[in-house]
Amino acid sequence: MARIVQKFGGTSVKDIDRIRNAAKRVKREVDAGNEVVVVVSAMAGTTNQLVEWTQTMSPLHDTREYDTIVASGEQVTAGLMALALQDIGVDARSWLGWQIPIRTDDVHGKARIERIETGELGRRLAAGQVAVVAGFQGLGADGRITTLGRGGSDTSAVALATELKADRCDIFTDVDGIYTSDPRIVAKARKLDRIAFEEMLEMASQGARVLETRSVAMAMNNRVRLQVLSSFVDVPGTLVTDEEEIVEHRVVSGIAYSRDEAKITVEHVADRPGVAAALFGPLADSAINVDMIVQNVSADGATTDMTFTVGRADLDRALAVLEEQRKTLGFKALKPDSNVVKISVIGAGMRSHAGVAQLMFKTLADRGINIQVISTSEIKVSVLIAADYTELALRALHTAYGLDEAG
Amino acid sequence: MARIVQKFGGTSVKDIDRIRNAAKRVKREVDAGNEVVVVVSAMAGTTNQLVEWTQTMSPLHDTREYDTIVASGEQVTAGLMALALQDIGVDARSWLGWQIPIRTDDVHGKARIERIETGELGRRLAAGQVAVVAGFQGLGADGRITTLGRGGSDTSAVALATELKADRCDIFTDVDGIYTSDPRIVAKARKLDRIAFEEMLEMASQGARVLETRSVAMAMNNRVRLQVLSSFVDVPGTLVTDEEEIVEHRVVSGIAYSRDEAKITVEHVADRPGVAAALFGPLADSAINVDMIVQNVSADGATTDMTFTVGRADLDRALAVLEEQRKTLGFKALKPDSNVVKISVIGAGMRSHAGVAQLMFKTLADRGINIQVISTSEIKVSVLIAADYTELALRALHTAYGLDEAG
Repeated sequence: MARIVQKFGGTSVKDIDRIRNAAKRVKREVDAGNEVVVVVSAMAGTTNQLVEWTQTMSPLHDTREYDTIVASGEQVTAGLMALALQDIGVDARSWLGWQIPIRTDDVHGKARIERIETGELGRRLAAGQVAVVAGFQGLGADGRITTLGRGGSDTSAVALATELKADRCDIFTDVDGIYTSDPRIVAKARKLDRIAFEEMLEMASQGARVLETRSVAMAMNNRVRLQVLSSFVDVPGTLVTDEEEIVEHRVVSGIAYSRDEAKITVEHVADRPGVAAALFGPLADSAINVDMIVQNVSADGATTDMTFTVGRADLDRALAVLEEQRKTLGFKALKPDSNVVKISVIGAGMRSHAGVAQLMFKTLADRGINIQVISTSEIKVSVLIAADYTELALRALHTAYGLDEAG
Repeated sequence: MARIVQKFGGTSVKDIDRIRNAAKRVKREVDAGNEVVVVVSAMAGTTNQLVEWTQTMSPLHDTREYDTIVASGEQVTAGLMALALQDIGVDARSWLGWQIPIRTDDVHGKARIERIETGELGRRLAAGQVAVVAGFQGLGADGRITTLGRGGSDTSAVALATELKADRCDIFTDVDGIYTSDPRIVAKARKLDRIAFEEMLEMASQGARVLETRSVAMAMNNRVRLQVLSSFVDVPGTLVTDEEEIVEHRVVSGIAYSRDEAKITVEHVADRPGVAAALFGPLADSAINVDMIVQNVSADGATTDMTFTVGRADLDRALAVLEEQRKTLGFKALKPDSNVVKISVIGAGMRSHAGVAQLMFKTLADRGINIQVISTSEIKVSVLIAADYTELALRALHTAYGLDEAG
């Protein structure tokens, strides 16, 4: 007997029929003698509708009301899933965030889970009842509903798996696993049987949208065995696990890309100590994350150009913040460019293999693709290139690192 | 300064614009220095969608899950209304049933309110914050969401008005008050300025759908001054109040009708003591309400015909229950007829005026309308007639009792 958390995303519970299908997947685990916690997202499209209403009503809305409104989506799915299970003879009940409760801080709209009181839920699990938990939501210290931010149902699932010491946390989604690259672009992309937590973390934060970054980090820290698999086709998925558990040794596991970047070049800023702090301080104060940074070699010895990236959604705000500081910073011009893409080569094997970055640069150079900014981490090399080259770059790199499917 | 409860029905909060309009009505009371509790229904159509999903998923569903699912509609409107108020500068917050809490029994799907703990809500009201309460819902003793049955938001409003000792409870709806009869049928129907609780109760239970019966009874028992008015046009509504407060003396206040009836005639049942108990006992056991009853004069001295009405929705079930008892009861035949309508003449003035029923019978006889069953109460005379005569009967009675509008 094992204890399993199964999380179904929005497309997996999009309508009555899909909820029924998902319920059958749950029943299979129950029939195998397992204790099952089901975590559900809102029916696909529901959250968008609720967010739209909220923003139409009040663009600068009270996030406590936002949470009250948006959390209703998962509430509906939780009830429907419990009914679907009961209808096929599985003892089940729905649990809302405040009922368990899943206690969070008061940062409405992107709350953090502080602790989960699984007493009653755990007792019922042990007694054979399936717990259907509304994902994405918790109970703030203020007694009001909180939500965990977009993709928060993954976090709910991993947090419950951690707290309940589950043997496995299955994330059912509309793809059947983690691929070496986006199969919609790279036809030869392969599904990975296993991927290391650290790699998955980089994949998620570098643009692969299958899993939410925070949930991967939480799974890694708590050693929760995560599995990503399709709720539509019955094939093995990808297991996200410790590096040691991965038998197949690869240097590079995947090529990710993110179109959510925008580049800003600050031209002719004074080349003196403290300029970076002066530039990035105000951005940080405005909660704008700066990602890749490159400082050009000073041409005249007195001024320099700084280039960096911010989230595309933050571009206008970042420009406004910098413009306000023009006098203090004394730069000549701000050049924004949102027509860029960040391509990342990811692999835990980089730690022990040299030449990974070099192969990336050479491959892109061979295709005539200009690299605008570079950043690296222990298991990742990222470059910023013009968006027009996205597909070409992904395919070339996929082949260069030997990731292409054999067939 | 007064304390006022304002309840907005589904059509009054159907979309963002209507919620905004409703918020303006609230602001007017706030600007006048009043403490305001707003009770909202789900956006029109939402509850039907949620109920449909529930029933599609599981026709004989767990009512606890039904409540969890269906209560989400009011949750969304409460949040949106709070935002709409904040957006026009009114301090407001949403309250869900479990947050106040509104404590109910555990009869999911049609729970009864047991008590409302208004401590924190009352403190905030006194501090000038508008409380936006999700109607229709409460917290069961089992810790789960309960709903109060269809139209339950009226009950929520009256219960809060009672508990908070509100000076008035305004029910905003899509009609601008209580009419002497259905204006869609009786063109000369007049809006009443005032109506007595007892009359309103009969009107509601005899088919007028503006107010839910339970909420009227609760308002009557707790002497809550109810006002029914339109959320679309800014005209005075109808005040539901104590009989003594009604200056205009009328014998009859309104003519109601209900198409929700069905008639059953049990032919040739043994005419002996206890036959009625034998007949109606099994129906009561199956939770089928019997309304009007007539026992025909025995023709042969040994058997009789019994005619009675049940809710149309219960007809098939009632027939099945009786059929099961055929041997015990020894009747000859069951004759169902759902092509009937119940017409009721209602007026507190009947207590002191004779001849009200007689005028009804004569008026219908003059039009050649056959009366099938009669039932009376202190302030009401109801007759069952063939459904084809509904409009004719309503108009004739409306004129006969002097209710026609002058113009």
